[in-house]
Amino acid sequence: MRHFASTARLLMIPTITALENSPDGGIGLARDMRVRWALEEVGQPYAVRLVSMAALKEPAHWALNPFGSIPTYQEDGLALFESGAIILHIAERYAGLLPEDPDAGKRAIVWMFAALNTVEPPIVEREMAEMERDAPWYEARRAAIDERVRDRLRRLSARLGDAQWLDGPFSAGDLLMIEVLLRLEGALVDDFPNLCAYLARGKARLAFRRAFAAQREVFERAHPGQ
Amino acid sequence: MRHFASTARLLMIPTITALENSPDGGIGLARDMRVRWALEEVGQPYAVRLVSMAALKEPAHWALNPFGSIPTYQEDGLALFESGAIILHIAERYAGLLPEDPDAGKRAIVWMFAALNTVEPPIVEREMAEMERDAPWYEARRAAIDERVRDRLRRLSARLGDAQWLDGPFSAGDLLMIEVLLRLEGALVDDFPNLCAYLARGKARLAFRRAFAAQREVFERAHPGQ
Repeated sequence: MRHFASTARLLMIPTITALENSPDGGIGLARDMRVRWALEEVGQPYAVRLVSMAALKEPAHWALNPFGSIPTYQEDGLALFESGAIILHIAERYAGLLPEDPDAGKRAIVWMFAALNTVEPPIVEREMAEMERDAPWYEARRAAIDERVRDRLRRLSARLGDAQWLDGPFSAGDLLMIEVLLRLEGALVDDFPNLCAYLARGKARLAFRRAFAAQREVFERAHPGQ
Repeated sequence: MRHFASTARLLMIPTITALENSPDGGIGLARDMRVRWALEEVGQPYAVRLVSMAALKEPAHWALNPFGSIPTYQEDGLALFESGAIILHIAERYAGLLPEDPDAGKRAIVWMFAALNTVEPPIVEREMAEMERDAPWYEARRAAIDERVRDRLRRLSARLGDAQWLDGPFSAGDLLMIEVLLRLEGALVDDFPNLCAYLARGKARLAFRRAFAAQREVFERAHPGQ
């Protein structure tokens, strides 16, 4: 999956950005992972342009993403940011991530927004709270935030039940929900066996494994021998 | 806009849910407001089914929205939740909220996700922190959260510049961004004149005013004389 962006343009394949040295240490929590996974699911080759943390603060990157984060997505004349919007574009342009039935497609999009706007925010807040680990209020706040996250997990777990995926076949909604829940692996999600099995099903997909290996390779190149 | 849901089904108009006694006190911060606004922008009549806070915790409501919140959206056989997904559906089904040019449409969707996944989460976290006003850590945390919100506002303000809307004509992306920023009115957003003017332009739209009046009417019926 290594191509230079200029070659990508000639080949008409999409180019995404990722961090050349991601603070997640290559465990797949950076948001290029979800876009890589979506591209692998639909079988679309892509190029990656690696950027430094410093480059995120430069006007050239802000032109692509005014909030200074990755991933961005470029394809022919189209330039997108926001992983949710990028994945929705991929799902609409290529087959494999949205059911063909229009109503089922709408419901898959509901799960995309549920992952990003209902489930992910308290999880990210929990991660921010972890950065205040030395603060005197850490323990007191931690319990309250955990309960907010658990409330979302309980409701999601009840809805999923013993189904394989959230609504019919695997969709972009499952992809984003699994990506969001993976941020809780080894923590709160472990109390919900059906959600753990759901994550395991997601991680077992060939497309997930290819995407994971590709982002991991970037980390290993930056940290040889680790 | 008052119709019963059964009549709505006969008339084939969409039915949304809203709280019969919203904790926001009718100031338009409940998430039915954004869906009402979208429906008004496209000129689509709709019915509202009012639900109590208690009803949100009942299985009948969970069948419509497993996370137990409003709004939900029903139309013919289709049932949706998540205000972002509902508004995207409205924008795709009716003209007026997405540019006709496909690439411009994709960019409008980017702004929808940016509003919900990049700008709104720290604003909601700030609201949660306000609920800890009596906690000993309130002052110390407040400054850090405000700075996270301000960082998003600075970048958004720089991108908007002196444009009327975020990318060409008014779109569903502007609608959601304005809805999110309105949560900061009288607070942090006031330091950014171009964002304030942007909010004022949004609030001046006839569709916004109609939607606002409709949700306000629900509050006034529940609290006569206030």
